Amino acid sequence: MADFDLLRTLLQPAQTKIVLLVMDGLGGLPRAEDDCTELEAAHTPNMDRLAREGCLGQHYPVGVGIASGSGPGHLGLFGYDPLKYEIGRGVLEAVGIGFHVTPRDVCARGNFCTLDVQGNIVDRRAGRIPTEVCARLVRKINAARIELEAGVEVFVEPVQDYRFVVVMRGDDLAGQIEDTDPQRVGAPPLPARARDAASERTAALFNRWVAEAMNVIRDDHPANGLTLRGFAKEPGLPKFRDVYGLRAAAIAIYPMYRGVAALVGMDRIEHQARTIREEFEVAARVWNDYDFLFIHVKYTDSRGEDGDFAAKQAVIEEVDAALPVLLDLRPDVLIITGDHSTPSQLRSHSWHPVPLLLWAPATARRDGSTHFGERACARGGLGTFLARDIMPMALAHALRLQKFGA
Amino acid sequence: MADFDLLRTLLQPAQTKIVLLVMDGLGGLPRAEDDCTELEAAHTPNMDRLAREGCLGQHYPVGVGIASGSGPGHLGLFGYDPLKYEIGRGVLEAVGIGFHVTPRDVCARGNFCTLDVQGNIVDRRAGRIPTEVCARLVRKINAARIELEAGVEVFVEPVQDYRFVVVMRGDDLAGQIEDTDPQRVGAPPLPARARDAASERTAALFNRWVAEAMNVIRDDHPANGLTLRGFAKEPGLPKFRDVYGLRAAAIAIYPMYRGVAALVGMDRIEHQARTIREEFEVAARVWNDYDFLFIHVKYTDSRGEDGDFAAKQAVIEEVDAALPVLLDLRPDVLIITGDHSTPSQLRSHSWHPVPLLLWAPATARRDGSTHFGERACARGGLGTFLARDIMPMALAHALRLQKFGA
Repeated sequence: MADFDLLRTLLQPAQTKIVLLVMDGLGGLPRAEDDCTELEAAHTPNMDRLAREGCLGQHYPVGVGIASGSGPGHLGLFGYDPLKYEIGRGVLEAVGIGFHVTPRDVCARGNFCTLDVQGNIVDRRAGRIPTEVCARLVRKINAARIELEAGVEVFVEPVQDYRFVVVMRGDDLAGQIEDTDPQRVGAPPLPARARDAASERTAALFNRWVAEAMNVIRDDHPANGLTLRGFAKEPGLPKFRDVYGLRAAAIAIYPMYRGVAALVGMDRIEHQARTIREEFEVAARVWNDYDFLFIHVKYTDSRGEDGDFAAKQAVIEEVDAALPVLLDLRPDVLIITGDHSTPSQLRSHSWHPVPLLLWAPATARRDGSTHFGERACARGGLGTFLARDIMPMALAHALRLQKFGA
Repeated sequence: MADFDLLRTLLQPAQTKIVLLVMDGLGGLPRAEDDCTELEAAHTPNMDRLAREGCLGQHYPVGVGIASGSGPGHLGLFGYDPLKYEIGRGVLEAVGIGFHVTPRDVCARGNFCTLDVQGNIVDRRAGRIPTEVCARLVRKINAARIELEAGVEVFVEPVQDYRFVVVMRGDDLAGQIEDTDPQRVGAPPLPARARDAASERTAALFNRWVAEAMNVIRDDHPANGLTLRGFAKEPGLPKFRDVYGLRAAAIAIYPMYRGVAALVGMDRIEHQARTIREEFEVAARVWNDYDFLFIHVKYTDSRGEDGDFAAKQAVIEEVDAALPVLLDLRPDVLIITGDHSTPSQLRSHSWHPVPLLLWAPATARRDGSTHFGERACARGGLGTFLARDIMPMALAHALRLQKFGA
């Protein structure tokens, strides 16, 4: 990871502004017909100009050969070693629906399931009930106002289909708790078992909550039971303001990315943007309030996972066409990259290094690149590096770090 | 850092000779008019030939995004992790004036200051007295022959203007001591306070020395007091002979670079050289006595800090023109690089990776480079790496390392 202790000693005040523009799943593979990736095939006159004026490179979000999920991919981009810092599944699920997770929270993913009269699971997904039914069941549980003990609150929120999320909030809660889903039918849900002494009380509270919630839905069909998994405490990550001295904000259409950013101390910008251009216009609106903006573009990854080369290329072109809105803000440092590769040929996240463009008109070392693409990045002046080096690069190019030693 | 324990097990005897030629602050940024850095713009037919015959790469002296000082930059080049091994400010000041610091020494930087009748500081720099006055005061203090205890010696040397250096030599001294400079006027100098038990006796000895030295200059004006800061023990670095099996020597015009090299066990070559060619001629004179020569060229950095692109370019051309003197010695490995970048556009040390040329006629893998410059190095066969990898590269290309494992 970025060496936070070192960086803290080197931080110096500056008025410079940094933009980290993440096209989710940006990296691709060349197709046969013209040997171009989605990024290489895309018509990107603005990014190509930035490549001429800036410097290219490629990064590994987690490590060589590792295809990264969105959580670790973004942690890497933000300078946190994803092998050291983990965002538990429950927390990721909660932030994914826009729930504001606090440091006092333990989160779990829930499944509604179908139990037989002996209490054994006969369908782990309750016949895949639609989201409306899930939401109705959640409302019913919430209406029961289950009370556990003074100072402990429980929030339940529907997610999708049979899935929901439970967040328990209180002092001294801990999340080292085993899943209650036995992962098979014909067995009853397991009790929540603590993996360490610090989690005993939290596990007991979850067991009481489960018993009461099951009682509330016992006569519903097919969802008359529930299981919990992915228990996780809010990870307590160091915050951008503290480690980088940056007032930072996140602009993303999907709540999960705002949520992951919030876990590292970024403000979540609320907005109605639905297009990339509108996201950039949101950046313009909050420009004066922040030193650092993380802007997330989702659909490069979505179209890559669809296996739709042309549609992913079109998303990249949409970003390029909207880029003047960002450039008009005159950022001192603009980094354009992805959180992992999602080649449309593979229809999934991949381990391939992720192209990166660093543009900093006053401080970047131009490397002779003429366009933004995987092959140009592999030969770029920044070389090949780990994602956790990106934030030190950004701070340095923004003249926010003093010299180390005499 | 270089893995000293590993390297020690792999060292094998050889007659090969390695030259590390450091152009201080070598790396630059391209200027607008021709998109060339100082190194790229320079006419360097000799280095370009070495680039064709050798292999290029670029390195980070300390880490990505970190602009390195000269001390850590050279430690990195010498294979020592600058985040693990530190040369304290007092030691750097002492070696900077050519003082031969020994493992029994604790060094501190001194300021002459002006005290009022209550003993409070009214001018922390004593009206910025000229160096001659500083030297006279130092002579007066030395003439007083302050005696602290048997076996403890104190050396005082003028540096520049109001600055001097104090070196205390004895057994079991330690340097974890707070500055005596209160960093403001209207307060008296602070006592030297130990930060750990091992430094208690040394702090007490410094306090006694300060009291006696202040007494010697009490009637001088404006410099009737003094403060000390940057207390530091000689760092006890592993030595080149031990970790690399090399008889090593340093050739530098500025004492500080000879001094830093001496801290890693290199012999300081005394000489009268004032030009780069003369430095190379000194190398020829001592060639038979050493396996490794570190040759330091200062003025690339100086001209970069002046903001003088053309003058920095001219220093590089002067190095190139003199290079045949070195090449006539037929080194087995010649590495040409810098300890950090100093782009003349920034007038300061910077974090940009530093170009490196490795020439080893018998062993280097030619990478198709045709000239020595930042962009060629970014695309070079050695890739992008940390400075601490340079010494293992040098040893390997000098056939001084056995195979690891069977």
